[in-house]
Amino acid sequence: MTDLMEARSNTPTDADLTRWDRDHHLHPWASTDSWRKDDYMRINTADGIYLWDSTGKKFIDGPGGMWCVQIGYGRKDMADAIAKQVVEMPYASPWSSTSEPAAVLARRIAEMTPGDLNTVFFTTGGSTAVDTALRTVQFYNNRLGRPDKKLIIAREKGYHGSTYLASSVTGKERFNTKFDKSDLVRFLPDVNPYGRPEGVSLEDWCDQKVADLETLIAEEGAENIGCFIAEPILCSGGVIVPPPGYHQRTLEVCRANDILYISDEVVTGFGRLGHWFASQEVFGIEPDMITCAKGLTSGYLPLGACIVSDALMTAMEEPEGAEVFYNGFTYSGHPVSCAAALKNIEIMEDEDILGHVQRVAPHFQDRLRAIGERFDIVGDVRGMGLLGCIECRLDLPRKSLEADLKFGARLDAVCEEMGLMLRPFGNMAVFSPPLIISKEETDRMFDIMEAGLEKLSAEYDG
Amino acid sequence: MTDLMEARSNTPTDADLTRWDRDHHLHPWASTDSWRKDDYMRINTADGIYLWDSTGKKFIDGPGGMWCVQIGYGRKDMADAIAKQVVEMPYASPWSSTSEPAAVLARRIAEMTPGDLNTVFFTTGGSTAVDTALRTVQFYNNRLGRPDKKLIIAREKGYHGSTYLASSVTGKERFNTKFDKSDLVRFLPDVNPYGRPEGVSLEDWCDQKVADLETLIAEEGAENIGCFIAEPILCSGGVIVPPPGYHQRTLEVCRANDILYISDEVVTGFGRLGHWFASQEVFGIEPDMITCAKGLTSGYLPLGACIVSDALMTAMEEPEGAEVFYNGFTYSGHPVSCAAALKNIEIMEDEDILGHVQRVAPHFQDRLRAIGERFDIVGDVRGMGLLGCIECRLDLPRKSLEADLKFGARLDAVCEEMGLMLRPFGNMAVFSPPLIISKEETDRMFDIMEAGLEKLSAEYDG
Repeated sequence: MTDLMEARSNTPTDADLTRWDRDHHLHPWASTDSWRKDDYMRINTADGIYLWDSTGKKFIDGPGGMWCVQIGYGRKDMADAIAKQVVEMPYASPWSSTSEPAAVLARRIAEMTPGDLNTVFFTTGGSTAVDTALRTVQFYNNRLGRPDKKLIIAREKGYHGSTYLASSVTGKERFNTKFDKSDLVRFLPDVNPYGRPEGVSLEDWCDQKVADLETLIAEEGAENIGCFIAEPILCSGGVIVPPPGYHQRTLEVCRANDILYISDEVVTGFGRLGHWFASQEVFGIEPDMITCAKGLTSGYLPLGACIVSDALMTAMEEPEGAEVFYNGFTYSGHPVSCAAALKNIEIMEDEDILGHVQRVAPHFQDRLRAIGERFDIVGDVRGMGLLGCIECRLDLPRKSLEADLKFGARLDAVCEEMGLMLRPFGNMAVFSPPLIISKEETDRMFDIMEAGLEKLSAEYDG
Repeated sequence: MTDLMEARSNTPTDADLTRWDRDHHLHPWASTDSWRKDDYMRINTADGIYLWDSTGKKFIDGPGGMWCVQIGYGRKDMADAIAKQVVEMPYASPWSSTSEPAAVLARRIAEMTPGDLNTVFFTTGGSTAVDTALRTVQFYNNRLGRPDKKLIIAREKGYHGSTYLASSVTGKERFNTKFDKSDLVRFLPDVNPYGRPEGVSLEDWCDQKVADLETLIAEEGAENIGCFIAEPILCSGGVIVPPPGYHQRTLEVCRANDILYISDEVVTGFGRLGHWFASQEVFGIEPDMITCAKGLTSGYLPLGACIVSDALMTAMEEPEGAEVFYNGFTYSGHPVSCAAALKNIEIMEDEDILGHVQRVAPHFQDRLRAIGERFDIVGDVRGMGLLGCIECRLDLPRKSLEADLKFGARLDAVCEEMGLMLRPFGNMAVFSPPLIISKEETDRMFDIMEAGLEKLSAEYDG
């Protein structure tokens, strides 16, 4: 309970808002030495690929919100579709009923997914989609009378969300935190081709990475392993693209060992790589489950989904005796969120945003590669579609996480000053702009990045 | 991938929608023998306390969506507020920025909560709010160098959501399922005064329930117990109101043993008992954390929150060395969801909905009690505010869960026929209507319930 009178003002000042956020709003990944102390930039308006903060300063949105705002900001047609559903029917319990938006969206998603991935379980975002997928593995193996087949294989530098279980399969090294993790998870070593030993070809690297999986399965025993969870591209870990062939070969290893394969497409789904989903169309695999969120609504409203194959559904159905799938959220299949997703898909189709991504991506990747060649400070550039990462050289004198964060914060500040919003990522800068970004806007974004790297090069050369 | 052409129609028929939902939409708590087979009622429109299904049939919404639609359906002002935020700024990453709706809402929630519960962590619903609260207990005790102080005390018949961790603290007996649970949870026996041994007074019952907690703490050792999580009223477990004094005494036991107290107000928050929060104003306790969701937006959009006390924030801050609170969701503090929550709170204030609940609740509870007295088939009626439960007699020949579900389904069908939507709850019927329900609408709702019980009485008498 804080002072009631003070906060009743209907026209808070800029200083009020800053203070209220600082005093009362705990942000994701706040640090104990800065929470309730430091202030966050406040975003007031947004349009297209641009954001404006509370001082009126304009930015290109480099991370696209949080890898999510595919169609860009300020879409009036999206507001209309959302408002229409709110007035007509804003909520229906998914336990006992359904709604037209949920039914149509489930069908649309089933159209987009590869193979027999035809059943959609709706959640509230990526974390709950992953949590549901992992719990489905439990349900499946318990149904089949294999209670020991529960270990989860995940990967170093993978990111899968923030429930207890979703965070437990997250392998980013900085996730050695004061939060506890499930002991049912085993991690495979980094698949990043950058940083592989000198003289190791990409083909050899792929062999090694597949062997890592086979070795782990041999050590733990396939009879104890329930699933493998993998992002097609490890996005939050630094846009790591595994070597060619890796996806198909790891899927084959899983199939050979009766291990379910979960493809976490929270970032790669909905156009980021020029296709609705990347698993099959980009990487040639048909997983047992796909998780998605973010681009599903372009971030306009919270929604996630776990998509399950017919084969898996049937396997859970067949054993003797019915069992209830005791999983579900009040906001599963939320009619308004589903209506937003449908409008988002419609916009992407009407404006051929997948085609646009396919047309702009080569230029986007060319600009990235040119940066890699131009700057000595840059160790690696990588990416695919409208995903990119610039990683600064590992051999520079920034060996600690603290130094990396300082470097990242400095690069961030320099680019922000020039009108480009980045997401600080230690010694990396990642790019995941709204998919509607034009060739000219792409140039502007990377021009600023180059100017920022010029400054940082000068500073770190000294 | 399903047939693309077939689903492209912009005007799906009723039969299409039914089929698409059946074939592609996995609902919460579906049973393996009915998923992909049975059809769900489809809700098309809604207004006030009423829902209309796809056949045009009108229903009073007994459960209020899913204990959530406080302000009722069809609010144009809500649609306008949501649309405004969508156009202005639909998404800002909570990792690196904030928004005016999130800052103002955090402040407003801090105003409403008791004591020093002043810091708000936003999530996507109740499950993720509970998951966050439980992870905060881990963070806190690890920070304090007490890695063993991690057991969670929960209660039989409690319901706390559906992530792996939130479902692990859920004690509803039917939750013995094919999903796995964490082994860190200990359950206290049922606190329901109904069903207590004959001759045991309410005061004695309270003594016993407090003793249950003390005994468990003694057995496990306070040094191994991180927290106690409790709904003020066990809603989904059957609107169980613990005996008077129970809340304060269990809080005192927790404080005496350095055990954090989490009050799960996902249902009781935002007016259900006539107050913003029930912990202090109804039950006289100031917990360490409060979780909320549902009524926070009246279910119009997904949003949840975990509210943390200043004392707990400070305790996490103080140890040597900063640590990052690695918890957070893409949709934490979603600007549009927060704008919906602010409009919801404004509507509740402008229309004095808390006062309305306080005025209507006595009549609501009178009608409930009259049902208890009138029907031999009814074993117990109970409730508080605009929460109610009718539990049929335990000594009737319906001893199995299956028989209970059949009974519940029959009661549900009979009431639906007459225009009252219930939520099937085994041998119970629960009520949690939109808070705007009038005295006359309350009468109409319970009139139908009485007619339904008349029919059931005749059937089960035979």
